[in-house]
Amino acid sequence: MDGTKAGPLPDPYDSRCPSRTVLDRIGDRWTVLVVGALATGPMRFSELARRIDGVSQKMLTQTLRGLERDGLVTRTVFAQVPPRVDYDLTDPGRSLIAPLAALDAWAREHIDTIEASRTTYDASLAAV
Amino acid sequence: MDGTKAGPLPDPYDSRCPSRTVLDRIGDRWTVLVVGALATGPMRFSELARRIDGVSQKMLTQTLRGLERDGLVTRTVFAQVPPRVDYDLTDPGRSLIAPLAALDAWAREHIDTIEASRTTYDASLAAV
Repeated sequence: MDGTKAGPLPDPYDSRCPSRTVLDRIGDRWTVLVVGALATGPMRFSELARRIDGVSQKMLTQTLRGLERDGLVTRTVFAQVPPRVDYDLTDPGRSLIAPLAALDAWAREHIDTIEASRTTYDASLAAV
Repeated sequence: MDGTKAGPLPDPYDSRCPSRTVLDRIGDRWTVLVVGALATGPMRFSELARRIDGVSQKMLTQTLRGLERDGLVTRTVFAQVPPRVDYDLTDPGRSLIAPLAALDAWAREHIDTIEASRTTYDASLAAV
């Protein structure tokens, strides 16, 4: 409450702490949707692209590469014709399923209230 | 698994669904930190700015305004000299404390693994 910073690192309230970049990764809209999609098992790129309606190739590639770099997703290339590439969650990636599913559920549950609040807020600004 | 989209709206896997914009709001790094800070009670702008090390005035203002627009935070002005402005969580805002605290905890717990993975990944790219 008084603005003091307690405890050792990692502490995302401390600007020097790299855990802030982890928050950026896991809170990202596309991360939430990719991890949720992979929760049921490995998928190919094209399956993910179909599951996550409207995601661009570029954004999906970027998200998967970021998750791979962070060790949350594996990318496995099968030597067959045509080549097949599967994406799957690692153990740390799997540990994200529950917290991100909670965000997804929260978003679904509160979207109506939030949209109503946005309309009221915008109308109150317009009325000034 | 097969890319079909099931169930009625709201469904963040459907690009037409506004719940995606809710995911953007709640997964945002600054939202996680602001909601976590306000979990213990109302705070003034300056207290929040001190608690969240390194946040810019502009970013904090923008985050609080977004949360207010979404009905997750209230802004109360007290008519005193100098004027005092308190920020507090609404009931829907309070319902975010637990899911966002889970993200915060996950980030703290996994930062070491993730940083190690990033180093390995970057080194493997450099070696190609």
